[in-house]
Amino acid sequence: MKGEVLTIGDELLRGEIIDSNKSFLSERLLRLDIETHFHGSVRDDPADMTDAFRRAVSRADVVLVSGGLGPTRDDLTIEVLARTFGRKLVRHEPSLAAIRAFFASVGREMAPVNAKQADLPEGAEALANPLGTAPGCLLEVDGRQIFCLPGVPRELHRMMDEEVLPRIAARHPGRAVVRARLLRTFGMGESNLEEALADVAKEGEVVLGFRTAFPDNLLRPLTRAASAEEADARLDAVCTAIRSRLGALVYAEGDEPMEAVVGELLREQRRTLAVAESCTGGSIAERVTSVAGASKYFLGGVVAYSNEAKRKLLDVPAELLDRHGAVSEEVALAMADGVRARFGSDLAVATTGISGPGGGAADKPVGTVCVALAAAGERHAERFVFPLDRARHRSLTTQLALDWVRRTLLRQPLVAPTILRRRS
Amino acid sequence: MKGEVLTIGDELLRGEIIDSNKSFLSERLLRLDIETHFHGSVRDDPADMTDAFRRAVSRADVVLVSGGLGPTRDDLTIEVLARTFGRKLVRHEPSLAAIRAFFASVGREMAPVNAKQADLPEGAEALANPLGTAPGCLLEVDGRQIFCLPGVPRELHRMMDEEVLPRIAARHPGRAVVRARLLRTFGMGESNLEEALADVAKEGEVVLGFRTAFPDNLLRPLTRAASAEEADARLDAVCTAIRSRLGALVYAEGDEPMEAVVGELLREQRRTLAVAESCTGGSIAERVTSVAGASKYFLGGVVAYSNEAKRKLLDVPAELLDRHGAVSEEVALAMADGVRARFGSDLAVATTGISGPGGGAADKPVGTVCVALAAAGERHAERFVFPLDRARHRSLTTQLALDWVRRTLLRQPLVAPTILRRRS
Repeated sequence: MKGEVLTIGDELLRGEIIDSNKSFLSERLLRLDIETHFHGSVRDDPADMTDAFRRAVSRADVVLVSGGLGPTRDDLTIEVLARTFGRKLVRHEPSLAAIRAFFASVGREMAPVNAKQADLPEGAEALANPLGTAPGCLLEVDGRQIFCLPGVPRELHRMMDEEVLPRIAARHPGRAVVRARLLRTFGMGESNLEEALADVAKEGEVVLGFRTAFPDNLLRPLTRAASAEEADARLDAVCTAIRSRLGALVYAEGDEPMEAVVGELLREQRRTLAVAESCTGGSIAERVTSVAGASKYFLGGVVAYSNEAKRKLLDVPAELLDRHGAVSEEVALAMADGVRARFGSDLAVATTGISGPGGGAADKPVGTVCVALAAAGERHAERFVFPLDRARHRSLTTQLALDWVRRTLLRQPLVAPTILRRRS
Repeated sequence: MKGEVLTIGDELLRGEIIDSNKSFLSERLLRLDIETHFHGSVRDDPADMTDAFRRAVSRADVVLVSGGLGPTRDDLTIEVLARTFGRKLVRHEPSLAAIRAFFASVGREMAPVNAKQADLPEGAEALANPLGTAPGCLLEVDGRQIFCLPGVPRELHRMMDEEVLPRIAARHPGRAVVRARLLRTFGMGESNLEEALADVAKEGEVVLGFRTAFPDNLLRPLTRAASAEEADARLDAVCTAIRSRLGALVYAEGDEPMEAVVGELLREQRRTLAVAESCTGGSIAERVTSVAGASKYFLGGVVAYSNEAKRKLLDVPAELLDRHGAVSEEVALAMADGVRARFGSDLAVATTGISGPGGGAADKPVGTVCVALAAAGERHAERFVFPLDRARHRSLTTQLALDWVRRTLLRQPLVAPTILRRRS
C-alpha cells in the first residue's frame, strides 16, 4: 500500500515555516506498514490544489492532506476537494454544533465565518477535532481514502492517532501493524552499543535501530506483526533483554528527559539535591527546575564563575584553588561539598571546566572539565576532556552530572561517557 | 517566474527527519522575486524521481533539487537526471581533483566509490562545494534551470548563496531583488506594535511584516527593488524610522539573542552582573553563560528555591519572608541586594514567583512573579501575573529580567511586557 502526504499553505511555499507535519504523518503511516511515496506542498491556489489532489488519488491508496481548514478566505481545502471530485458542499450540523460548543467552552461566541468550517463534501465522513474548531473529513474516491486534517500540529497529531489510523486499519483489515519503542541511553558510543546488542538485534522479528540524539544514543526496536498485542509482546521481550544487557545505561523510555528521571527518583527516595556550577553556568539547575514539582527535592544551586565566588559562596579553600587551579578534581569536590553543606542537601553535584572557545592552557586544554558528586558516605570526582564546541560541551557535562545523580540514587557505579572519554 | 523544490531521500519519506531544506530554498528564491509553486519529496527510486523531474521542468522556470549526491548506491540523483533528459554521464576532472583534495585536507585518501561523485550529465555545469565532497550541478533543459545540491544543510546553504542565486540572477538579468531585515522587539504586543508603526508601514516601497516568536515580537521590513543597493538603502531608512519610533523596544537585529546584547553592553561598560533566581531556576544564568566570554562580566548566581536558601545564601531577612511571603517585591529586592553584595557585582537581578502548575494561592495565583533589579543608586521591583504554562512563564520572566539589565545599562526606563501585563 502506498501513502501520499500533501500539505497546503502559502506560508510553506514562501519558506516562512518548516513543515514538520509531513514527517509526523509518514512516521505514523509506517505503523500500519504503509510507505509514503510522495510528499507535496502547494499554495492556497485552487488550480494547483486540484492538480495535486488528482495526482495523489491516481497513485496512492491513502492520501493525507493537512492545512487549509480554517475559517478565512485563504482556506480552500474542502471547497476545492469537493469541486475536484464533483461533490456538492453540504453543511454538517453535528460539526456546526461542535464548533459552537468549542467557542462557548473558551467563553466566546462563534463568528459567522466559522460556520463555513462545518461544510463537507457530500458523502464525506466528519472527523472530530477535540482541540480546535476545524473538523477533519474522510472522503473516498475510487476506493482511495483521502483524509483532510488541520495544519496545527497539536490538532493534527491527536486526530491522526484517534481518527485517521483506526479508519485506515478498518478499511484494510488483516494488514500488519508496525510498532516501535524508544530506549534512551547515555554513556556508551553507538558502535559499542551495536556490538553489545548484536545478538539481541538478531532475534529476527524485531529490527533494532540506532540513532544519536546528542548527548544520548537512542535504541529503536521495531516490529511488524499481525496485531498490536503481538507486536507489544515482542517489543516487551526485546526491551527486557536490552535492559538486562545494558543495565543502568538505559535511563528512560520515549521522550522522558534525564531531569525527569532524576526528579522521580529523588521524590521516591525523599532525598534532596543542590548543585554547584562553574562551566555549566546554571544549566543543571535550569534542567532540574524545568520539571514541575522540582521544589519538592531541589533546594537550589550556586553558579560560581569566578574563583572569588567559589571561595566565598562555596567555601572552596583558597589554598586548593592556588595549588590545583579552578579546573581540578579537588576543586570540583570542594564545590560539591560546599554547596551540599550550604543548602543542607542529601546529594550535590559540581562542575568546573573550560567550555571554550577561549581559556585553555597546555595542561588544561579547552574542553577540560571536572565533575564531582557528594553524598553521605560517597564522594567522587573525575576529569575529562570533551573536544566539543561550547554548547555541546555544556550539554554533555550537564547530562553527565545528572546521570551521576541518577546512578547514585540507583546505587550503580558512576560511569564516564565512552563516546568522548579522553582523559588528559 | 515560478520555482519548484524537490528533495530526495528515503529518510524523508519515512518521516525520520524533518526537512528544513525546502523552506530555506524557497525563502532564498523569494530574494530573487521567484515564488515557489511546488514542494515535493520522493524516495531514492528512479521511476519516482524521473516522474518528479519531468513534471518540475514542465511547470517551473527554476528547479532546485537537494539530496542524493552522495557516493553510495542509494544516491541516484545525477544518474537519473541524466537518463531522464537523455544525457550521457561524463566525468568532470576538476571536480574529481577537488574531491581528492578535500579528502587530503582531512588527512584521508579518497575511496574509489567517491569518484562517482565527479560524474555529471553531459552539458551540465559543476557547482563547487567547499564544505563537502559532492559537487552540485546546473543543467539547462528547455530553457529551465535545474540545480542539484547536496542534502546536508550546511553545504546546501553555502552553495545556494554562492553558486545558485548568482546563476539565476545572471540568467534573468534585470529582475527585481527582494531583501528583508529582522528587528527583534520585547515588551510590546503585536497589535500595539502594528498601531505604533502604522504610518511607517505605509511608506509604500517597504512592506512591514509582524511575527511572534515568544516572548519576542519580530518586525520584518521587506522590499522589492531594482538592485541590492537600492533595497538596502530603503531598508536602512525604514529600520532607522522604526528604531526612532520604538526606541529601546528594539533590542537586536537578526538572530542575536538578548543575552548577547546584554553581554556586549556589560563588556563595553566594564560592568559586572550577578543573578538570584527562584522561579526561573537557573535559566537566567544559563542564558548569560551560553555566550562565549561571559566570564568577563558574569560573576555568578544563586538559585534559591527554598526560603531557607533565600535566607542563608542571599541574606534575605526572615522577617521579610514572614511578613510578605517569598513571592513579593520586597523579597525579590532583598534577593537582588543580597546576590549583589555576595558577589560584589555592579548589577543584579532577581526573580521569585509561581511558575506552576501547582503552588498558587488566592492572593498569589499561579503565574504570579516578582522581578527586581539592583544597581548603584537604582533599585526597582515589580509584580506581575503571567497566565502561562510553566515553560513559557520561565522563558518570559527570564527575558524580562535580561531586558531590565539591558535597559539599566542603556539608562532607559524599565518596562513591563504589555502583552501579558496583568497586575494583581
